[in-house]
Amino acid sequence: MYKTILDYVRRNQLFDRGDRVIVALSGGADSVCLLVVLNEMKQEFDLALKAVHVHHGLRGEEADRDSNYAGELSEKLGVPFSCVYVDAAGYAKERGMSVEEAGRHLRYEIFEEERQRFEGTKIAVAHHGDDQAETILYNLFRGTGLKGLGGMRPLRGNIVRPLLCVGREDILAYLREKGISYCEDSTNSGIEYARNRIRRVIIPQVKEQLNARAGENIVHAGMMAAKADAYLEKQAGSLLKKHGVWKKEESGSVFQCGIGTEILLAEDDIIRTYVIRQMINNVNQSMKDITMIHVESAAALLFGPADRQIDLPGGLIAARTGKEMWIKKKNVEDLVDNHLDVCLPNVDFSVFSYKKGMEIPKNGYTKWFDYDKIKCALSVRYRETGDYMTLAGGGRKTLKSYLIDAKVPREERGKIPLVAEGSHVLWVIGYRISEYYKITDDTHTVIQMQLDGGKVNG
Amino acid sequence: MYKTILDYVRRNQLFDRGDRVIVALSGGADSVCLLVVLNEMKQEFDLALKAVHVHHGLRGEEADRDSNYAGELSEKLGVPFSCVYVDAAGYAKERGMSVEEAGRHLRYEIFEEERQRFEGTKIAVAHHGDDQAETILYNLFRGTGLKGLGGMRPLRGNIVRPLLCVGREDILAYLREKGISYCEDSTNSGIEYARNRIRRVIIPQVKEQLNARAGENIVHAGMMAAKADAYLEKQAGSLLKKHGVWKKEESGSVFQCGIGTEILLAEDDIIRTYVIRQMINNVNQSMKDITMIHVESAAALLFGPADRQIDLPGGLIAARTGKEMWIKKKNVEDLVDNHLDVCLPNVDFSVFSYKKGMEIPKNGYTKWFDYDKIKCALSVRYRETGDYMTLAGGGRKTLKSYLIDAKVPREERGKIPLVAEGSHVLWVIGYRISEYYKITDDTHTVIQMQLDGGKVNG
Repeated sequence: MYKTILDYVRRNQLFDRGDRVIVALSGGADSVCLLVVLNEMKQEFDLALKAVHVHHGLRGEEADRDSNYAGELSEKLGVPFSCVYVDAAGYAKERGMSVEEAGRHLRYEIFEEERQRFEGTKIAVAHHGDDQAETILYNLFRGTGLKGLGGMRPLRGNIVRPLLCVGREDILAYLREKGISYCEDSTNSGIEYARNRIRRVIIPQVKEQLNARAGENIVHAGMMAAKADAYLEKQAGSLLKKHGVWKKEESGSVFQCGIGTEILLAEDDIIRTYVIRQMINNVNQSMKDITMIHVESAAALLFGPADRQIDLPGGLIAARTGKEMWIKKKNVEDLVDNHLDVCLPNVDFSVFSYKKGMEIPKNGYTKWFDYDKIKCALSVRYRETGDYMTLAGGGRKTLKSYLIDAKVPREERGKIPLVAEGSHVLWVIGYRISEYYKITDDTHTVIQMQLDGGKVNG
Repeated sequence: MYKTILDYVRRNQLFDRGDRVIVALSGGADSVCLLVVLNEMKQEFDLALKAVHVHHGLRGEEADRDSNYAGELSEKLGVPFSCVYVDAAGYAKERGMSVEEAGRHLRYEIFEEERQRFEGTKIAVAHHGDDQAETILYNLFRGTGLKGLGGMRPLRGNIVRPLLCVGREDILAYLREKGISYCEDSTNSGIEYARNRIRRVIIPQVKEQLNARAGENIVHAGMMAAKADAYLEKQAGSLLKKHGVWKKEESGSVFQCGIGTEILLAEDDIIRTYVIRQMINNVNQSMKDITMIHVESAAALLFGPADRQIDLPGGLIAARTGKEMWIKKKNVEDLVDNHLDVCLPNVDFSVFSYKKGMEIPKNGYTKWFDYDKIKCALSVRYRETGDYMTLAGGGRKTLKSYLIDAKVPREERGKIPLVAEGSHVLWVIGYRISEYYKITDDTHTVIQMQLDGGKVNG
């Protein structure tokens, strides 16, 4: 077991000599195993370890027991230890997210803070092979490409996952053999409904009825997808480096990135989408809210007539001119009557199954829509000529007349951000949503849009 | 719907103008839809169609009803029609395969025969998106790489699958709308247990509980995997073309294919495995029985000391010399005392879950083994020095003494094919299997090995 992990760490170059590592320690079997293994591996890579336990302020005495155990174990192993208290429930309420999500956000925030305080180079977390199989199926069912099929990566940024190569059973057997105890988590509070279904129902069923090695097989296929993904990124990167053109602001930040259409057209379909993704990332510094539909819509511009453009999330457009394909920041001046002080809010999208009786959020910053009614790429933007909404009876109303009726002063109208599918407006942010996309009894799938800061009118 | 399929046919270049197409017509909804749609598409590509129905000699009157309906529909559409009678049950018994498997073999054989008789260029089959999602999960659970994740390809050889872009629901709605009837299949006899579980239990559960669009999402991820796979094949192919060395027999057939280790080492891991696969295919003209474990074991030779080799299925070896990596046909002379007239049989491997009470085949050509006990690559080969088997008590016996005890004449001993994991013999073909690998109550997963022709002693 130790040997398997050591091999995996070496093969994936998870540690450099002298790394200073924050070890996330909940006190459960997985993280206890992680700490014990890394402590054993210390000499090998000359590591300095620090264990960090996050107390979520939930689960009363049980949580206290966990943090006590985490402290004791660290002391026994001679590893420095911190326990950090957070109010996950309060944070969740404040941000309008689930407690699980809040817990995850807070943990990674704290591990990062502790890393900086420790002058650390890495953060080690205890995800194992079973978690990986679950993640891969979760992504597959909810929609993904090779990236999601690849599951969690052993090394991403400064996060390392040395236990991905072993299963939960291996971990329990290892601890049993070494006579090391751990805390049982009495709830499944840490994970959301869909993951829980996959972990406790789907995977056991598949293992029992279809293939006992299904877990390992999923992880192995995921590894191939991750390798293919990394290779495609590399190929796309060298193509872009060789043929790309960047335009920068005075500050040095890229606002436009382009490449010859002929160059893209000579490549395979899949390389084109990887290049476009990298172009978006170059301009946006983030792939937030960019889905495959967006990338594929942008790639589709290559095949039609020239001089067309589409909106992308994050205030970007993909434009095809005569001989070039560009990803650029939307020129706010052109679109919203010189209101340069207005900035588009970030909108988080998430998609999940709708079950009757689910409570639709009733607040100004979280909206639900019927995902199956959306056929094209969505954009977050300001109003444009031709924008319309659907009324309760099914008729259309231009956005302009809606805004007039809503008594929005003319000079404010161009500043209101909205989410639209083509000219069909789903959500006038701060105002209302279109009847057409509303959740009904026939809704199968919800797309939730959630405002994440930004400047909102109304 | 028609438009969706037409787009898909164009985008994947499924038809060339003037193609002559055999349409597989069972009489069920999927194949009825396929025939109707292709008949509508006839002008577009100047297609000549012929419908072929295979009557399996099973299911009595119902099967007659199906073939009658298939004939009537073809006549109504003005498409020439053949019905071919086969004895699937007899064929299954004769070959020791399941009736489903026999049916599938026979159908493809007949479609190919009919294609040649028709001077046809393509064979169209009615697999749709739901079948594709099922295939992808089936492969994922049983172990696969990008190829299996990619599912069925729209065009492979002369087989085309124009309906992969639509779901079963779309097909039923289309037929309803057009007022076209079809035969209901009263049994699930056409598909095996594992596929049936995925189709009727797992996918509906995932759609209902996790994501209503899971089917489409799986198909989409599969498409990305298929594209990545095609790109990697292309990259590996150009590398091999540029740097590969082939040795041919007088007949022109390749018996050895090599490439510089430095060339391979300079490439990404995933490209190395694709190159090795292609080298195997070059020498073997087939990837039968070659699993990822074999390819990865061959790739692993690159990293250790020189002058090592491993066995691969199909009588191949992967060898690493000082500066080269070779895939070559095993030199039978070296190994089996000049019995050049002996040829190794083909052994089919398949892996599935074991459930207590399953009946273990009791014949000389199908054997079951406990898959979880196998840790390294298997090889089908003749005996070598050091070969041994495990006895009932757990002790070892050399293969030599086993063969002496079994009264096999010395001159015959080198001619007996066997399946081995390293020096540990699982199956002396025609004789017995090793106790060590036998199915027990603790077995989770079975690997079935089935003899497929070839020359067998004993």
